[in-house]
Amino acid sequence: MDALDAIKRRYSFRGIYKNIPVPRDDLKKIIEAGIAAPSGCNKQTTAFVGLDDQTLVNSIMELAKKNGYAGVNALAAICILTQKTPSYADKYFYAQDYSAAIENILIAVTALGYASCWVEGQITEDPQVQEQIAQMLNVPGEYTVVAFLPIGIPEKEGKGPERKPFEERAWFNKC
Amino acid sequence: MDALDAIKRRYSFRGIYKNIPVPRDDLKKIIEAGIAAPSGCNKQTTAFVGLDDQTLVNSIMELAKKNGYAGVNALAAICILTQKTPSYADKYFYAQDYSAAIENILIAVTALGYASCWVEGQITEDPQVQEQIAQMLNVPGEYTVVAFLPIGIPEKEGKGPERKPFEERAWFNKC
Repeated sequence: MDALDAIKRRYSFRGIYKNIPVPRDDLKKIIEAGIAAPSGCNKQTTAFVGLDDQTLVNSIMELAKKNGYAGVNALAAICILTQKTPSYADKYFYAQDYSAAIENILIAVTALGYASCWVEGQITEDPQVQEQIAQMLNVPGEYTVVAFLPIGIPEKEGKGPERKPFEERAWFNKC
Repeated sequence: MDALDAIKRRYSFRGIYKNIPVPRDDLKKIIEAGIAAPSGCNKQTTAFVGLDDQTLVNSIMELAKKNGYAGVNALAAICILTQKTPSYADKYFYAQDYSAAIENILIAVTALGYASCWVEGQITEDPQVQEQIAQMLNVPGEYTVVAFLPIGIPEKEGKGPERKPFEERAWFNKC
């Protein structure tokens, strides 16, 4: 899919996914898109756990739903891990790093015919949930679980929320 | 350009850009890619100033260079603005919002045959530089300048830094 099309077609899907598995090869391509994202001083603070074990996916979905995530099911997912280390001196860019990686992943997901949703607040606002997921996935101590991205083929295509018009969010040369 | 190709070909360019202007139409397409990025609770905290006024571009380049940015020139640029407002309760996602928007912009830049660089630390570590840029661009008080993305056609194509191997940054189901 064309890059600009994929960027425009990406949206947060919270409906029902078809019961069609996501091949491991596709999950790998999607994670490789995340790895290709830039990071502050190339510190590569973001790491990825691809999930195609349905029991694990369901368990994490349940935790996110308990915290308010409105999604229904998922056939696969990616958990995003971050190392909260400085890029230089006392400057931290890990949030920028993992956000760029997530956006790459969401575009790759769209380009490959899947949909996803950036589930972050429902994970990070509850340290117990973060810890439970970390234990389930055997996450090394230097990483923190920051987001969960369910993946699958939507039963029914959706679309994203309205955006403010261009003129309210962009200017040329002077605001 | 194919979405996965654009994601892989994106890199931080800090060399010399050709003396070829970036058409306003392309700048608009690039900003629209930024607008298409998701934001926490759709709060759309990110805004964009497209720059094709060479004097403005040069002035901001000089400020960034004074703070250590290693780039040389630029034919156009986009300044990224953020509203540091909560998405819900006391939860802030503006850094995630503008990072996803920047990544979309960098992919669109690549897909359209240009190169760019995510210049953030050299802007935000010096509040005086942020303020000078805000004054130059007449940025409304509710926004903070957080990044500068020079844009142009490279004299000579470059490539990004090496990444750690997949196995060091990704796992399937269990780390």
